[in-house]
Amino acid sequence: MTDTTWKYENFEPAGSAIGYRIRRKLDEVQSPFQKIEIYETTDWGNLMLIDGAVMLTTRDNFLYHEMMSHPALFTHADPKRVVIIGGGDCGTLREVLKHPGVESAVQCDIDEQVTRMAEKWFPELCERNGDPRAQLLFDDGIAWMANCEPGSVDIVIVDSTDPVGPAEGLFNKAFYGSCFRALRDDGILVQQSESPLVLLELIREMRVEMGKAGFTEFKTLPFPQPCYPTGWWSCTLARKQARGFEFRETDARAKAFDSRYYSADVHRGALATPPFVAAALDE
Amino acid sequence: MTDTTWKYENFEPAGSAIGYRIRRKLDEVQSPFQKIEIYETTDWGNLMLIDGAVMLTTRDNFLYHEMMSHPALFTHADPKRVVIIGGGDCGTLREVLKHPGVESAVQCDIDEQVTRMAEKWFPELCERNGDPRAQLLFDDGIAWMANCEPGSVDIVIVDSTDPVGPAEGLFNKAFYGSCFRALRDDGILVQQSESPLVLLELIREMRVEMGKAGFTEFKTLPFPQPCYPTGWWSCTLARKQARGFEFRETDARAKAFDSRYYSADVHRGALATPPFVAAALDE
Repeated sequence: MTDTTWKYENFEPAGSAIGYRIRRKLDEVQSPFQKIEIYETTDWGNLMLIDGAVMLTTRDNFLYHEMMSHPALFTHADPKRVVIIGGGDCGTLREVLKHPGVESAVQCDIDEQVTRMAEKWFPELCERNGDPRAQLLFDDGIAWMANCEPGSVDIVIVDSTDPVGPAEGLFNKAFYGSCFRALRDDGILVQQSESPLVLLELIREMRVEMGKAGFTEFKTLPFPQPCYPTGWWSCTLARKQARGFEFRETDARAKAFDSRYYSADVHRGALATPPFVAAALDE
Repeated sequence: MTDTTWKYENFEPAGSAIGYRIRRKLDEVQSPFQKIEIYETTDWGNLMLIDGAVMLTTRDNFLYHEMMSHPALFTHADPKRVVIIGGGDCGTLREVLKHPGVESAVQCDIDEQVTRMAEKWFPELCERNGDPRAQLLFDDGIAWMANCEPGSVDIVIVDSTDPVGPAEGLFNKAFYGSCFRALRDDGILVQQSESPLVLLELIREMRVEMGKAGFTEFKTLPFPQPCYPTGWWSCTLARKQARGFEFRETDARAKAFDSRYYSADVHRGALATPPFVAAALDE
């Protein structure tokens, strides 16, 4: 194959790398917060990098976006008000809005340029941005959560980059405390929680910080995500009150929308924590 | 970090790559069949490459070896005689021999050098090679299966490299026909079946070939495997007779051996075929 090159992301904390065969760079913008680049790959559609780290590809982002949203929304008894912190590519928002019971979905990403690039290069992720239930804010998610009306939110989804740079403040007690206050008693916090194979220590620490903020129960759901380090990723659900992580399985089986990875059976499977993960998390 | 380099495997059929941070090359041998290299990584223990393709690392091989063995052995009602074609690193053999009901486990790999390198650099995988139930053969697996006594085997595990080079003949009707003859009526064939994200066409073709050889039922179980392309891998189980893929769940829960990824719940979860995989496989 001619006119292609390989582009790699070396993931230093794990000592492993992921790469793609690239046709050309499509776009680049330096926002006030980070550098966003878009590449055309040979096999994965378009690829977004932020400060050199792979964010998403056209081909495999459905795995992450479906698993960041549907398990939590089918675990909550009746989610009406959802807040997404980060998530500027709008893919999680799109999945959340597939739930007809959702009355309001606020997406608060600090960097408007991420959404502008998504609109241009991943338009399918933005197809529900005009939904009257959707509100797109470009603001500091930490401050926004701190000022959010107490007990007003059913689900907070922290769809952030890695816990370095702009997203570092989304992984500590202060931020989780704001989420705790904003949530109703039966509310659920969802945090993308990195690779369960190599970053179990990070998941432990995250749970400790969530616990300090008042959250009482935690569950980490693994799922495949080829574009992230190790190809195996996770989200962690936290509850204010001890209500467990059983989900509305009948509703999940009868859902009126399509999904490509998520199903009631896949959800059930993701609740099966592998023994080595359970051991590391003291479950 | 000084004195380290990054080593990448470009996986051409998927247009993606995987890489590791390397301290140094530990060993290299050119066998009559292939070039085997061993590297010391910074975070993944030792790494084996065959003809430049990543075969296994110390850190994550348990995922593959457990999933290539335990689901099939807990699906069969009473597996006594197991044959492994390929599998020269002996990791699958080790897992098979954890089942006390297994009376005989034959491992037939064409390349003795793979086993010699595993003994040297992955000794933990070879710790059961001296088990009196184990028989290690270094021979052509295609010829060996063709000459195997009909109806004498409970489970055949095809633990092969990709379907190119020495392993190409392990993915066609002729070889699967030999497996079909060698298996008892309630026997199960297990084939490593590549990435369910990008190689669904290969899994389809494999099933067609298995079907031509007489196999009637198929089930593809996905699992994480960071060292293989996309980080998401699979094994495909095929049955001679239509008996389904329900497993001895009570026995799996009560198993007397440790496993790090496999559990009865993880097995149940792996049976939940994601919608996009089911659609591609016409399930």
